[in-house]
Amino acid sequence: MHANFSSAASQVQIQLAERSYPIVIGTQLLGSALTYQHLPQAASALVVSNTTVAPLFATQLMQALQSRYRKVLLLTLPDGEVHKDWPTLQLIFDALLQNGCDRKTVLFALGGGVVGDMTGFAAASYMRGVPFVQVPTTLLAQVDSSVGGKTAINHPLGKNMIGAFYQPLLVVCDLDVLATLPTRELSAGLAEVIKYGPIADMAFFDWIEANLDALLAKDATALAHAIERSCEIKAWVVGQDEREAGLRAILNFGHTFGHAIESGLGYGKWLHGEGVGCGMVMAAHLSQRLGLVDRPFVERLTVLVGRAGLPVTGPRLSSTDNAGRYLELMRIDKKSEAGEIRFVLIDGPGKATVRSVPDALVRQVIDDCCI
Amino acid sequence: MHANFSSAASQVQIQLAERSYPIVIGTQLLGSALTYQHLPQAASALVVSNTTVAPLFATQLMQALQSRYRKVLLLTLPDGEVHKDWPTLQLIFDALLQNGCDRKTVLFALGGGVVGDMTGFAAASYMRGVPFVQVPTTLLAQVDSSVGGKTAINHPLGKNMIGAFYQPLLVVCDLDVLATLPTRELSAGLAEVIKYGPIADMAFFDWIEANLDALLAKDATALAHAIERSCEIKAWVVGQDEREAGLRAILNFGHTFGHAIESGLGYGKWLHGEGVGCGMVMAAHLSQRLGLVDRPFVERLTVLVGRAGLPVTGPRLSSTDNAGRYLELMRIDKKSEAGEIRFVLIDGPGKATVRSVPDALVRQVIDDCCI
Repeated sequence: MHANFSSAASQVQIQLAERSYPIVIGTQLLGSALTYQHLPQAASALVVSNTTVAPLFATQLMQALQSRYRKVLLLTLPDGEVHKDWPTLQLIFDALLQNGCDRKTVLFALGGGVVGDMTGFAAASYMRGVPFVQVPTTLLAQVDSSVGGKTAINHPLGKNMIGAFYQPLLVVCDLDVLATLPTRELSAGLAEVIKYGPIADMAFFDWIEANLDALLAKDATALAHAIERSCEIKAWVVGQDEREAGLRAILNFGHTFGHAIESGLGYGKWLHGEGVGCGMVMAAHLSQRLGLVDRPFVERLTVLVGRAGLPVTGPRLSSTDNAGRYLELMRIDKKSEAGEIRFVLIDGPGKATVRSVPDALVRQVIDDCCI
Repeated sequence: MHANFSSAASQVQIQLAERSYPIVIGTQLLGSALTYQHLPQAASALVVSNTTVAPLFATQLMQALQSRYRKVLLLTLPDGEVHKDWPTLQLIFDALLQNGCDRKTVLFALGGGVVGDMTGFAAASYMRGVPFVQVPTTLLAQVDSSVGGKTAINHPLGKNMIGAFYQPLLVVCDLDVLATLPTRELSAGLAEVIKYGPIADMAFFDWIEANLDALLAKDATALAHAIERSCEIKAWVVGQDEREAGLRAILNFGHTFGHAIESGLGYGKWLHGEGVGCGMVMAAHLSQRLGLVDRPFVERLTVLVGRAGLPVTGPRLSSTDNAGRYLELMRIDKKSEAGEIRFVLIDGPGKATVRSVPDALVRQVIDDCCI
């Protein structure tokens, strides 16, 4: 009865020597004991989820794990980016210690990007590192945040400022979980899918344009392809540059503007994917001003982002000096060096580059792109 | 005028492939720009110290760094193991973000084990990892905690429970700083020096017995040898097992009992080295009960620990069930698996082993060793 992912599901491998691991993509995975059969033995497992996701999928997952771990615990965190902070992270450490969890205890992140990032950082830090598994339940987490080992919490002064590069043992992308995903979250996930086109694969961009309606309608075949191709591109990038010494930064296309929007409005106002969607449009405008892409390309990206249900104009973050506020927030970006913002730009469709840009030019783009 | 450590100082190399680094041991190192000449370029450096150490050495260090970094910042933390917690760690992140520190900013840990562990964990986590340098100012930090990349903070339920394996770029052991070290701290450091004898090198143990008076009198030649040999043994162990999959656990000889004492009394009552000193005696008794060493060996270790100015009998941690309280606290040790405590025992002088022991036997040892 159980899906065996060696036959029914597809797999993308992240190649990182002794830290390599598979991303399994398919249906009926989350609740199947077979999905977890290659994980290491341990006395206990802790499933970390949130108040939205736990009622939907925690029982299924815990039942699948019960044959493998004597003690399967559940910790339900409050939902939302605003809780991606230390006090919430501390709840994970409290649960681990109160239940006598040891160095072999396996953590399972059951939720979207916030749950994945926090559980991953908890796994990286608890007793200096315990194994963990990503079970992403949003499209965004399946195509981006659960893959590649970036974990973090936010600091009041900046997003994802405290974290670790720490790889999971396994990523389980079960398409069935997307059935309950709200439209707004689906759109937010599509932002990260669209992202892979301009930075790496315009044929995939063409495919997204042609299949966007199917994706928005949650067509299983379309979603499976979008997730698989996204993970393949991400795996290729991460395999070459795990710790973002260079190439990996291109995955942050749209994120510099996006993070400024998220943090400027207050975490949770806009979804991360909404910030990224709008941020890609702004970064495309900036690329055009530098002569790297032409106007039709910017239009094409803007149309697709809009069709995906994402914002294409930026919010005002200050009533006096809006562009100044954006710049101030963007300077806190992790890619900044010595106060100089490093933008991911499109250097011709399908190819990204990272560089700094004169403030004056960035100001013009912000003025053009904000309503 | 400046000491050039290639000639005047000795070096021990930690061999960890691309994470290898030198431990430099000598005099006049801390305040010399030459000591830092091979560190990577960056716009800024942050020196993290505490209220006791900063007034003594921060100016020297900062002046030495000024030629290399445009901006050299100082953060002074409250002193003591009781502050090895999240709120204090957060002060480091606050300082980094408030000063626009980026991914290349170099952190310098100027202090004892607490400053080193916290600065190291901050460096591991800030923007998912920035470079850092250990400038240990206690004997304990020079011979043990600054070497090998273990970083952590305490959790109310257990010591060093949240942290990372994260290697520094350089460890600077300046003998001059030990001149101001209080006697009690010197003794605490000697606990970790003595430790290397029973677990790895009885010839070194002989040498310590013969030279303990010189060490207690802060004789520079004796201290230099003690630090160098300790670092050599630690480097040898860490080079084989960076993440404590096996062998490295032997470095925790005395620490299972010691951590229970520290945490049971409340952090800061006993110094870490005092807990380790007494813990080694208790672990030696346990080894004897298992027939691994004879009584004269236990006596010999007890005498040396006592001569070093360290406690050789354990405190009572509970007026009703003292041994039960020890066991309860020791079960939270990171070496525990599925609730089973793993003890580092001496398997004949100069050789350590890690194993579990029946509770009844542990209880007898605790009853024997506590007053």
